[in-house]
Amino acid sequence: MADTITPPTLPPNASMIQMIEALWRLPRDLVSEGYDDALRALAGQLPMTIHEYPTGTPCFTWTVPEKWHCREARLETLDGRVLLTSRDNPLHVASYSTPFRGEITREELLPRLHVHPRLPDAVPFRFFYYTRDWGLCCTQALKDSLAEARYRVVIDAAFSPGTLKVGEAVLPGQSDDCFVFCAHLCHPAMVNDDLSGVAVGIDVMRRLARLPRRRYTYRLVILPETIGSAAYLSHNEALIPTMRGGLFLEMLGTGHGHVLQKSAPGDSIMDRCAALALRDDGREHAVGDFLTVILNDERMFNAPGIRVPMASLSRTLPQGHPEYPFNEYHTSLDCPERLVPGSLEASRDLVLAIVDMLEYDHVPTPLFKGELCFSRYGFDYARLKMSLMQVLFSLDGQTSAVDIARKTGSPFAVVRECLEGMAAHGLIDKAWPTPV
Amino acid sequence: MADTITPPTLPPNASMIQMIEALWRLPRDLVSEGYDDALRALAGQLPMTIHEYPTGTPCFTWTVPEKWHCREARLETLDGRVLLTSRDNPLHVASYSTPFRGEITREELLPRLHVHPRLPDAVPFRFFYYTRDWGLCCTQALKDSLAEARYRVVIDAAFSPGTLKVGEAVLPGQSDDCFVFCAHLCHPAMVNDDLSGVAVGIDVMRRLARLPRRRYTYRLVILPETIGSAAYLSHNEALIPTMRGGLFLEMLGTGHGHVLQKSAPGDSIMDRCAALALRDDGREHAVGDFLTVILNDERMFNAPGIRVPMASLSRTLPQGHPEYPFNEYHTSLDCPERLVPGSLEASRDLVLAIVDMLEYDHVPTPLFKGELCFSRYGFDYARLKMSLMQVLFSLDGQTSAVDIARKTGSPFAVVRECLEGMAAHGLIDKAWPTPV
Amino acid sequence: MADTITPPTLPPNASMIQMIEALWRLPRDLVSEGYDDALRALAGQLPMTIHEYPTGTPCFTWTVPEKWHCREARLETLDGRVLLTSRDNPLHVASYSTPFRGEITREELLPRLHVHPRLPDAVPFRFFYYTRDWGLCCTQALKDSLAEARYRVVIDAAFSPGTLKVGEAVLPGQSDDCFVFCAHLCHPAMVNDDLSGVAVGIDVMRRLARLPRRRYTYRLVILPETIGSAAYLSHNEALIPTMRGGLFLEMLGTGHGHVLQKSAPGDSIMDRCAALALRDDGREHAVGDFLTVILNDERMFNAPGIRVPMASLSRTLPQGHPEYPFNEYHTSLDCPERLVPGSLEASRDLVLAIVDMLEYDHVPTPLFKGELCFSRYGFDYARLKMSLMQVLFSLDGQTSAVDIARKTGSPFAVVRECLEGMAAHGLIDKAWPTPV
Repeated sequence: MADTITPPTLPPNASMIQMIEALWRLPRDLVSEGYDDALRALAGQLPMTIHEYPTGTPCFTWTVPEKWHCREARLETLDGRVLLTSRDNPLHVASYSTPFRGEITREELLPRLHVHPRLPDAVPFRFFYYTRDWGLCCTQALKDSLAEARYRVVIDAAFSPGTLKVGEAVLPGQSDDCFVFCAHLCHPAMVNDDLSGVAVGIDVMRRLARLPRRRYTYRLVILPETIGSAAYLSHNEALIPTMRGGLFLEMLGTGHGHVLQKSAPGDSIMDRCAALALRDDGREHAVGDFLTVILNDERMFNAPGIRVPMASLSRTLPQGHPEYPFNEYHTSLDCPERLVPGSLEASRDLVLAIVDMLEYDHVPTPLFKGELCFSRYGFDYARLKMSLMQVLFSLDGQTSAVDIARKTGSPFAVVRECLEGMAAHGLIDKAWPTPV
Repeated sequence: MADTITPPTLPPNASMIQMIEALWRLPRDLVSEGYDDALRALAGQLPMTIHEYPTGTPCFTWTVPEKWHCREARLETLDGRVLLTSRDNPLHVASYSTPFRGEITREELLPRLHVHPRLPDAVPFRFFYYTRDWGLCCTQALKDSLAEARYRVVIDAAFSPGTLKVGEAVLPGQSDDCFVFCAHLCHPAMVNDDLSGVAVGIDVMRRLARLPRRRYTYRLVILPETIGSAAYLSHNEALIPTMRGGLFLEMLGTGHGHVLQKSAPGDSIMDRCAALALRDDGREHAVGDFLTVILNDERMFNAPGIRVPMASLSRTLPQGHPEYPFNEYHTSLDCPERLVPGSLEASRDLVLAIVDMLEYDHVPTPLFKGELCFSRYGFDYARLKMSLMQVLFSLDGQTSAVDIARKTGSPFAVVRECLEGMAAHGLIDKAWPTPV
Repeated sequence: MADTITPPTLPPNASMIQMIEALWRLPRDLVSEGYDDALRALAGQLPMTIHEYPTGTPCFTWTVPEKWHCREARLETLDGRVLLTSRDNPLHVASYSTPFRGEITREELLPRLHVHPRLPDAVPFRFFYYTRDWGLCCTQALKDSLAEARYRVVIDAAFSPGTLKVGEAVLPGQSDDCFVFCAHLCHPAMVNDDLSGVAVGIDVMRRLARLPRRRYTYRLVILPETIGSAAYLSHNEALIPTMRGGLFLEMLGTGHGHVLQKSAPGDSIMDRCAALALRDDGREHAVGDFLTVILNDERMFNAPGIRVPMASLSRTLPQGHPEYPFNEYHTSLDCPERLVPGSLEASRDLVLAIVDMLEYDHVPTPLFKGELCFSRYGFDYARLKMSLMQVLFSLDGQTSAVDIARKTGSPFAVVRECLEGMAAHGLIDKAWPTPV
């Protein structure tokens, strides 16, 4: 029985793919045992606090929902032949379906039996978070085969008081000012949406943990979508002023190019570093305004009264593409086999490159006058000539290293090389872009 | 005789077309009996003050001209056959022509006999406001038929002291801050230019008069072009600081799309509301910078020392079009038959939509934190989803309702629906965009 | 012998072409007798101070180099046949070559014998300012003819303490605030690069000297490239705050259109006047950002700690063109015969037009209200109508004459005519754009 499934475990320092394979199949609903099992397993990968918010807790204008537990949902013929059961795949039942047990006619059944409009072999993901109702999901072939007059439906589900859980990992820095990575964990039996973002976030944090020093504090929050952000933020309002930016992570295992969705202000330091990292990365990518790529928890962070500039990073097709955001989105086909090898690692490295910019960024102030006699300071002038010029003339005591790279078009690594060469000779002074 | 023509009258609450038909044929020159008759008739349509400025009154750098009265101007053969007379059409004599009576040769006559370069059947409109001279106007056919050696010309006109008249209708609002509609009335025997703007202005004011309350005060000024604005503004300087914007109205009965000519600053609240109303209207339209569409009294309002941001609304062809601003412009063919049915009414409704925006516009301030749990407040989320998002994230306590609609691309009506839904639940506070 | 060449002289008030023809062939190296002879001759054309900075003097991060004197450099066969000698053309030896005398193999010689990659008949210009080495330069034909196994090389050159010289001409104005023209003189035996800029600079100054009054002070500095600017600026730091802008001059005798390279800020009054003069000039031209057209001493002036907004004016091909910056650049073919007649004069007149704008520019403030009754003030309304309108509505007490011309598109001369007409009637007040 589902009730007695042994909770999954993970070896210490599991790889991203190990995390995904161990946890993807769990029925990870908003407030549910599957979600709790997954979060508990992840908490062994790095120091993590698990915040709990009981059912009914007010969170800004939201309320923590009840726990939903579905022992089994199945469809069978009147003579007892099982046509589908959630024991095969949690997606066969719409999340948060109300309990039901009875015989219904084919005509009553069909509107509640959801298939995917484009993918006949897929079982779609449906949910009833905002209305009380029930539904089943199946492939087109199964639906087409239903020829009998009546069927039996069993949705052995229950609502009960529970606790919504948010996992938070914190890496302290010299400053309490922090950047927040965020990913949701509440999409049952799927991978790119949403385990891929969780895996990348954890791997990023494990690597940042090894840095000898960090200028900023970094947080990773893992939560059920939307309500999880509302719960976390409404109970940690004192932290909000320290959050200088954030990055939502998801859909990072597809083979599509990276897409940066800017934060609401669009020009925060996180936006600028992320756009620069993508530019310097050179591979195909896209940048879109807030609300124009994909909608997730970055909305809650950017909302009125909070206004943390959280961007989002994904690998999605453009809006308007028939397979937007990616072919297997919200279906049973979003499974480990579809992960494109190397995608998760490249996304992780991109996030690390962004952090590298955040950490290095500062406002250089020239301590010299005139164009430098570059030949005197050991610069590789033949290679760096135009970059040296562009960096030099950008030294206005206001423009930061990241902004110099953005405005001049020189790669960040080259700008950094020029600035470090100048700093090594005491030619510039460094100031952090804003007090921290 | 023209001197004894009975002044026209209008029924109470005359339609726009009734006003035009009753008044269009009058010889409405700058300071003239025809103008006075027309203004007096209009004054019965709504409460109106008629300001009088005597000949010779200094108005900024201008001076009120003399009254011009032309009993008759005619061209005849030496044997007394009348070829043209202003009793048939006031346009046959150039406005403000000097008196003349005598025989002249064909060669002397022809340079003073004006025809239209493109429309052979039209009698063109000419005037001598800035030089003292006389001229006659006729069709190409008449001019071509002149084969005799000598003709007799009679221009039985007189200059005398008079009073320039400006009609002003005022609808008080909660604030003394006002918006000014302006139209000129001094174009004899023509319709689109200029009676159409007068008619729309009066109908707009009559409808605004029925509003249970107005936030702003509204003024309609009807005047002779340029000198009328100079006279009115130079004698009402105390009002100028209360004028937050204005809209000049003319050429609104053609079948062309609306054209908004922005005020000199170009981004006043009137400019923004007018541009938004045109965008939401959806029909073909154009927006041009100040001085690039058509020149009228908005110049005097926008000029140094006054700087009231008055835009202008017309239905003109683009500059550069061979028929610019419209085919019958400044000719005898600009007559009631050429009015395109429905145009005046659509223009009036557009102006009312602009006023609706001016009246509603405010800066909403969120009283909540986080993204709203829309399902809790009865919004039609399926229909409004992206608009609700866009409005929500625009709530920065600085951006007004009109600017939210402009920046997000959501129709004003939809933005308003979202904001009113929020206001109904006490979720936002409203502040007027500037103190009034 | 080169040592005993009679220094060139110039007649008083020599023409630009006379200056070029008299001085172009001199071996004008950074610190050298040829350079000194040229500067001394130019000093007779207008009052000039010659600043001297001894070898070893620190100049910001630079140091004044040694004087380099090359009595002769030659290549000969072992049997004494002279293949090339610097007595024929100073370009045959790389500037600042180290002394050498000896026999070398053909294989040793060839890498030190420089030819032009594209122009087989040209002797290229090479230098060793930042490394100690020697080289010879010749045509492709000469290099191809070298078939012997060994050759004799004589570079009879010497380094010794000397003084770097900067010529400075000053024309005082009502204000100490100044604009700086700059050109370098250190390119041996070439014309467009760099004598053309020197000649234009001197002719401009001679003409400005005749003005009855100047609002600003003007400076012309003639110097060896880069190090000359470092020397001059580091020893005249007190002047830097008075320098409101500058213009570097070079390559002005080609037949290509003018190219303005903006200063680093890009919107200084010099930038704006120069761009406007080019626009009004109407002939083919281009405008590029700082560092994107051609690199010269404007870099030192724009550099950190100095920040004088110096633009540059040249007649160069676009970057990327195979002949960039011009066909004969840095070769023996850059000689007087290649000057395109009229180019220098047109460039001089363009610079004078820029100065005319700098001198006239002011912020007009209207002393009237309303649109002017233009007919009252004698304006040629038929011709000036739209310009008069545009000027009138631009009178906001903040926008200067030059900026009115730029923003409205009206030629500066027409804007000036309108403003002078208004000023003649006491209609405007004038304020200088910034306190001087």
